[in-house]
Amino acid sequence: MKKQKLLVAKIGGNIIEDKNALESFLKDFSKAKGPKILIHGGGKSATKLASRLGVKTEMIDGRRITSADNLEIVVMTYAGLLNKTIVSGLQKYNCNALGLTGADANVIVADKRPAQFVDYGYVGDVTNVSGKTIKGFLELGITPVFCAVTHDKNGQLFNTNADTIASEVASAMGTHYEVSLFYCFELQGVLENIDDKESVIECIDLERYTELRDTEAISDGMLPKLKNCFDALQKNVRKVHIANADFIKDNTIKHTTLSL
Amino acid sequence: MKKQKLLVAKIGGNIIEDKNALESFLKDFSKAKGPKILIHGGGKSATKLASRLGVKTEMIDGRRITSADNLEIVVMTYAGLLNKTIVSGLQKYNCNALGLTGADANVIVADKRPAQFVDYGYVGDVTNVSGKTIKGFLELGITPVFCAVTHDKNGQLFNTNADTIASEVASAMGTHYEVSLFYCFELQGVLENIDDKESVIECIDLERYTELRDTEAISDGMLPKLKNCFDALQKNVRKVHIANADFIKDNTIKHTTLSL
Repeated sequence: MKKQKLLVAKIGGNIIEDKNALESFLKDFSKAKGPKILIHGGGKSATKLASRLGVKTEMIDGRRITSADNLEIVVMTYAGLLNKTIVSGLQKYNCNALGLTGADANVIVADKRPAQFVDYGYVGDVTNVSGKTIKGFLELGITPVFCAVTHDKNGQLFNTNADTIASEVASAMGTHYEVSLFYCFELQGVLENIDDKESVIECIDLERYTELRDTEAISDGMLPKLKNCFDALQKNVRKVHIANADFIKDNTIKHTTLSL
Repeated sequence: MKKQKLLVAKIGGNIIEDKNALESFLKDFSKAKGPKILIHGGGKSATKLASRLGVKTEMIDGRRITSADNLEIVVMTYAGLLNKTIVSGLQKYNCNALGLTGADANVIVADKRPAQFVDYGYVGDVTNVSGKTIKGFLELGITPVFCAVTHDKNGQLFNTNADTIASEVASAMGTHYEVSLFYCFELQGVLENIDDKESVIECIDLERYTELRDTEAISDGMLPKLKNCFDALQKNVRKVHIANADFIKDNTIKHTTLSL
């Protein structure tokens, strides 16, 4: 039997931090047909709140070192303000959104990342996504909206990278649906030449990815994103797109498609 | 056909603000048999965060005047930190909790309270609770955990009193279940004499309530709580109990039961 299509979209700071861009994206996303899931980050907001509270923010390779104080800030910002702003924003457009951390309905369980070269603090690496529970929500006509918070099933919440959550959720749903994963990006896609915004690489397969990685042709920040994409493709996800927000309403615009 | 029993419990600051009391309550609550729903407040935490952020907190008759800045604080605290601490705390004890604001799955819709004698700001009065959606969650084995945030289905979040949410949710569920509503209280129950903690009034019916109200025999803070109780009793709720947290594990301890 042909599987039903499922859209998994991830948005980051460039959309979330801009009230008009967010409103416009949520309006377009709510119109996307069929079952869908949204994942959001929110690092910039967390950093701003930390600064207002006099809590130090420390990043290593773009990853937040999450002390107990930082974790509280992350949970307040991601699961509280941003998640509920997005959920109520989608409800406005008749998209029946349900905000989730990994702890809610036990949908995403993680292990605390072991302190090796770097102690990231309360950062969780995903160990299980309950595709069955998420499918149950989708079948009720609900659109799950995940923030970047997981738990260990033992009372501890964690900060977990939103790109990774998107990849893991998309993979878990691949058993039940034909999943396309869309990473919403500030640019048009992955650039061949970082100084030329028009130099979008339209197709990246595993061979091209390995080549780009080994020749250091793409920026450091892009590499973990691409790794998440190929992780998803290798675990049941049909297609991954890295594209500008407008892709949600017009999938013919120039963008990057990743495939194996 | 006999309706299935449903427990609706509400906890406030005296439990939430005390880490050990909260852990102990969540452990006991998770053991309560059958379908159940938890509602929590969190005003003290919101006031603390407001103070750290230099945002003024203004209360009139125990109700928070909710400016735009206060609303952000309320959403961060209630829907973020407190709700997710409670949800992950319940998951630890194998209670499949799901944190909800009114916006999530559109379960509680409210109207902005009109500014009459007092302008309460972003405070919502409940206009609809979707008992059907909540029943759907319960039938999936999920325990809904509501914080005191609602929405207007038009993108606006509101601060809504947690006691009122408990009363409204309990009433909405009364169509489907035999509901008992438990307001967790710092004392043993409603006191006859505020200076004597042992003077618990064990039964209050409508007549006694009217008498207590008219003779000003009970404290001002207790009156809106009792009003919420009788509102619920008049709308499908079978029994209401005002009792200490220990009531969750031992319903034979001294407490106040309200009935029509």
